[in-house]
Amino acid sequence: MKIVLIGAGNVGWHLGHRLKSCRQELLQVYSRGAAKAGELASRLGVPFTADLKSLNPAADLYILAVQDDAIPEVAAQLAVAGVHNKLIVHTSGATSMQVFSGKFQRYGVFYPLQTFTKGRETDFEMIPLCIDAKEEADLQMLSDLAGQLSRAVFRISDEERAVLHVAAVFVNNFTNHLFHIGHSILEKENLPFELLLPLIQETAAKVLSAAPGSMQTGPAQRGDEATIRQHLDYLEKFPRYRQLYEAVTKSIRKT
Amino acid sequence: MKIVLIGAGNVGWHLGHRLKSCRQELLQVYSRGAAKAGELASRLGVPFTADLKSLNPAADLYILAVQDDAIPEVAAQLAVAGVHNKLIVHTSGATSMQVFSGKFQRYGVFYPLQTFTKGRETDFEMIPLCIDAKEEADLQMLSDLAGQLSRAVFRISDEERAVLHVAAVFVNNFTNHLFHIGHSILEKENLPFELLLPLIQETAAKVLSAAPGSMQTGPAQRGDEATIRQHLDYLEKFPRYRQLYEAVTKSIRKT
Repeated sequence: MKIVLIGAGNVGWHLGHRLKSCRQELLQVYSRGAAKAGELASRLGVPFTADLKSLNPAADLYILAVQDDAIPEVAAQLAVAGVHNKLIVHTSGATSMQVFSGKFQRYGVFYPLQTFTKGRETDFEMIPLCIDAKEEADLQMLSDLAGQLSRAVFRISDEERAVLHVAAVFVNNFTNHLFHIGHSILEKENLPFELLLPLIQETAAKVLSAAPGSMQTGPAQRGDEATIRQHLDYLEKFPRYRQLYEAVTKSIRKT
Repeated sequence: MKIVLIGAGNVGWHLGHRLKSCRQELLQVYSRGAAKAGELASRLGVPFTADLKSLNPAADLYILAVQDDAIPEVAAQLAVAGVHNKLIVHTSGATSMQVFSGKFQRYGVFYPLQTFTKGRETDFEMIPLCIDAKEEADLQMLSDLAGQLSRAVFRISDEERAVLHVAAVFVNNFTNHLFHIGHSILEKENLPFELLLPLIQETAAKVLSAAPGSMQTGPAQRGDEATIRQHLDYLEKFPRYRQLYEAVTKSIRKT
């Protein structure tokens, strides 16, 4: 399939490499930053542009992997760049497919549910690809492409994707913030963060084998008031973490 | 080393197996539940008892792997069971070593910083063992033993262990609760939890390579008000999760 990749951030980076390794025909990489576009394009061995007016109009599919808040504007520019009758998809968990409505006839979503870091290897084959399209024929085309990139392809509606995105914020963004709190407390007390790493890995590994609700442990779960009190006393010196401790403890107790 | 293991819960189970595989001389397993004591003892090929009066007094070390709130009482019973002049340690993150003071002359702590599930294999060699003892000679003995069980042995004071325990609650108990919320939302919306599993694994894997604070992403981090508003609107149907969403979002913004 002939593809133009629009965006050279974390998602564009990983998607570009995966498309290439799955022998898709990448025609061009675009990023508004020429250096960024050039770096990814050279790695993929394809041309690049930093000017939407120079976009290659010969692709079957235009993948928009830009920041959420840039999608409407870039879509509007694309619509006047001669590709308004081509299939266009975005890769966003938080954006409705309808962002393309009125500007394009054929549009859809190609959302990889994973957190990407440039330069960090990831097992793309296991990444859930959440796809959708306005037209049934385009959905089939996206499904075929997604099936070559990953073993986990799901048709997910706008409403379902919005739900997934909220859940992803809890298990990824918020979880990382808890890791940061652990890191920050240990750093301030001159204890090595390495002490917590096996615990963090095992906490994540466990949910592969059983529902997390069935494995909840700790003072809040046990109703161990003495320990909770000790922890709150200690956290007097970290008022923000103390507030969060109280909020999560309350939520666990009510579960 | 001749050891009596007191407690056959998750910690006792894993510690017992590790002690055996490291060829320590386990003399006896105790649990107040005879069935539980018997099951672990038969797996380890050692005698058991459910009566502290029948405790084998010939060990060099008594490891108290019971629930935190049972430690004072079991310690008191042990002190009158003829082992008051032996070395005794507990395995608790939340309990001061001083719980033994006045009852025993020789005491310490042997705290494995990990979450244990019975029947679930764990790479014990990587588990941080946090040790401490009142007497320097006993600390050396515990250090030797710990060094045979794990590659990660740390001398950790009562105060430091209390800090570690608070941090462990954040990165383990609270994190698991966030996983539960993700699970619960998807379940209620008839979406498979499997969709979130690669994201959860990657979130944990990433902290092995960089400080979590440096990798924070998401709408709260970006200050993406529109997405936060969408999420809060959606969470109207889960008021408890909505409260937590607000609390964590606030904490991330202030970081």
